[in-house]
Amino acid sequence: MRDAPVEGVYLSGVYDLQEIYAHHFAPFADRVRIRLPKDIEDPSKITFAVTWLPTADAFDAFPNVQLACSIAAGVDSIVTCPSLPDHVHVTRVQDDNQADLMAGFAAWHVIWHHRNMGFYLDRQAKGVWEHQNFDRAPSPKDYTVGILGYGLMGKAIGTAVAAMGFPVVAAVRSAPSDPAPAGVTFETGEGSIQRVAARSSALINVLPLTEATEGILNRQLFDVMPKGAVLIQLGRGRHLVDADLDAALDSGQLAGASLDVFHVEPLAEDHPWWRDPRILVTPHQASDSSRALMATQVTEAACSVARGETPAHTVDKRRGY
Amino acid sequence: MRDAPVEGVYLSGVYDLQEIYAHHFAPFADRVRIRLPKDIEDPSKITFAVTWLPTADAFDAFPNVQLACSIAAGVDSIVTCPSLPDHVHVTRVQDDNQADLMAGFAAWHVIWHHRNMGFYLDRQAKGVWEHQNFDRAPSPKDYTVGILGYGLMGKAIGTAVAAMGFPVVAAVRSAPSDPAPAGVTFETGEGSIQRVAARSSALINVLPLTEATEGILNRQLFDVMPKGAVLIQLGRGRHLVDADLDAALDSGQLAGASLDVFHVEPLAEDHPWWRDPRILVTPHQASDSSRALMATQVTEAACSVARGETPAHTVDKRRGY
Repeated sequence: MRDAPVEGVYLSGVYDLQEIYAHHFAPFADRVRIRLPKDIEDPSKITFAVTWLPTADAFDAFPNVQLACSIAAGVDSIVTCPSLPDHVHVTRVQDDNQADLMAGFAAWHVIWHHRNMGFYLDRQAKGVWEHQNFDRAPSPKDYTVGILGYGLMGKAIGTAVAAMGFPVVAAVRSAPSDPAPAGVTFETGEGSIQRVAARSSALINVLPLTEATEGILNRQLFDVMPKGAVLIQLGRGRHLVDADLDAALDSGQLAGASLDVFHVEPLAEDHPWWRDPRILVTPHQASDSSRALMATQVTEAACSVARGETPAHTVDKRRGY
Repeated sequence: MRDAPVEGVYLSGVYDLQEIYAHHFAPFADRVRIRLPKDIEDPSKITFAVTWLPTADAFDAFPNVQLACSIAAGVDSIVTCPSLPDHVHVTRVQDDNQADLMAGFAAWHVIWHHRNMGFYLDRQAKGVWEHQNFDRAPSPKDYTVGILGYGLMGKAIGTAVAAMGFPVVAAVRSAPSDPAPAGVTFETGEGSIQRVAARSSALINVLPLTEATEGILNRQLFDVMPKGAVLIQLGRGRHLVDADLDAALDSGQLAGASLDVFHVEPLAEDHPWWRDPRILVTPHQASDSSRALMATQVTEAACSVARGETPAHTVDKRRGY
């Protein structure tokens, strides 16, 4: 007789994860069975959760959960959930394709600012042929791009941006052991984030959100950046002190920003950033992992835990990534 | 006694090159003296021309010209000038920085189409938070980018686009002897352009304009491309059969295009492409070479020729590049 499917639960205070993901799990129906809390008769049978932005008490109802799987690369809303028991493994999706999507998206924003591409879209809307003065655009080699966060995403971004001729400097805890991509250098250890910012004509944030990084994009950091630099914010809304960004733009210390993540998402309809020509707003779509890949990795993790093994792609909950 | 400066002339039927470039030549005043035809008393003293879009008879008035320097990377308007004597050397600007500028610009347009970035600009203009369906965006590894022309520009583009995770295939006469950048492959010889087009979700043109390449972007080529592919046209206006592009867009064979170059520049104010949402128009600014570098290279070339040497960056006039 075959083993019964491993039983899981969708836990989110915001999204109906079943509606979004059920058909991606359908191919694995003989291995995992995942339902919403309201549909579960015996919560003690539930050994794993598929989760994103769980409510504070979400895990209390499921005493035998051993595994909490993020549906994405980030886990901050899960590791900070008050009801998450200490012994539960937390996994995230790891998707090389997602890193490539992020790299292309970040590279696009670098060029958006470096070449002032909005100029051309504006002129096309008006039907006007007009040149920008090229001698004012810095040579790529004089336009350093900084990256905060050098995991799978940061490395892919660095590779892509350096390949366009920009010097890249990334802030890392300690220098990676594998060889750096051509054109990528590092600042390491204490103060590395400030030293990267100080050199960056464009600063890209892809840090994980932890206690140490919350609010790291603030006035002190903007003040050490070269005057007229730009921020490309692809991390989490809570990395940014919103009022400090507004002040830096108003003073001219920063010339512009691309924002993909926000304290409150969706960004409120009446938020002034929608109508600020210095800011490009995108709706948290820098990169999504493939749903099919997510379903595969969650199924593997649930079956690993059912066999008593540690699943792949487990995060260190104390570090937060 | 120092040698007198080498004497040159600005020749263009379109631009006042003196107004644009004189101050970039100022640092070299002891080595070259360049004036407009109307200001030259003794045309027999003129040994070189700084030129772009010269009139058909431009060279007739200067019988001792031995060198015609393009102010840019392209030379098509010079080598095809009826009054250019056979023995005159033609040089162009070679600028690695220009190749990097071109690479970033091309990469930006690849992402513009691949990720449908216009969706976000449109939603921001409306103040609307709306997701695109990510499962419909092809993975970068399933979105091949083709490049027509693999000189300094094509190679820089290929390097940049491949670094974002896209497979790149370039059409070349024969496989380059130096190692290909990671992720870049080649189609060589007869039919290579058609074979590249047949694989390209996005096709980037940076061919030089020659008799063989004029009109190469035509219905036959569009018809072999995957349905819904896009064209990124950064070469010369005369590479494209305009009506064939319109027909391919109308039939849905092509989904969109980025056009930086046109048969007639500036593009006419009433041209429908300005108002076509499938087309992104830019005013021939994919990359400009540095004016300071141009002045340096022209000065070196003029002095080389004055010493009886062959200048650097000389083009093969029969090939046209």
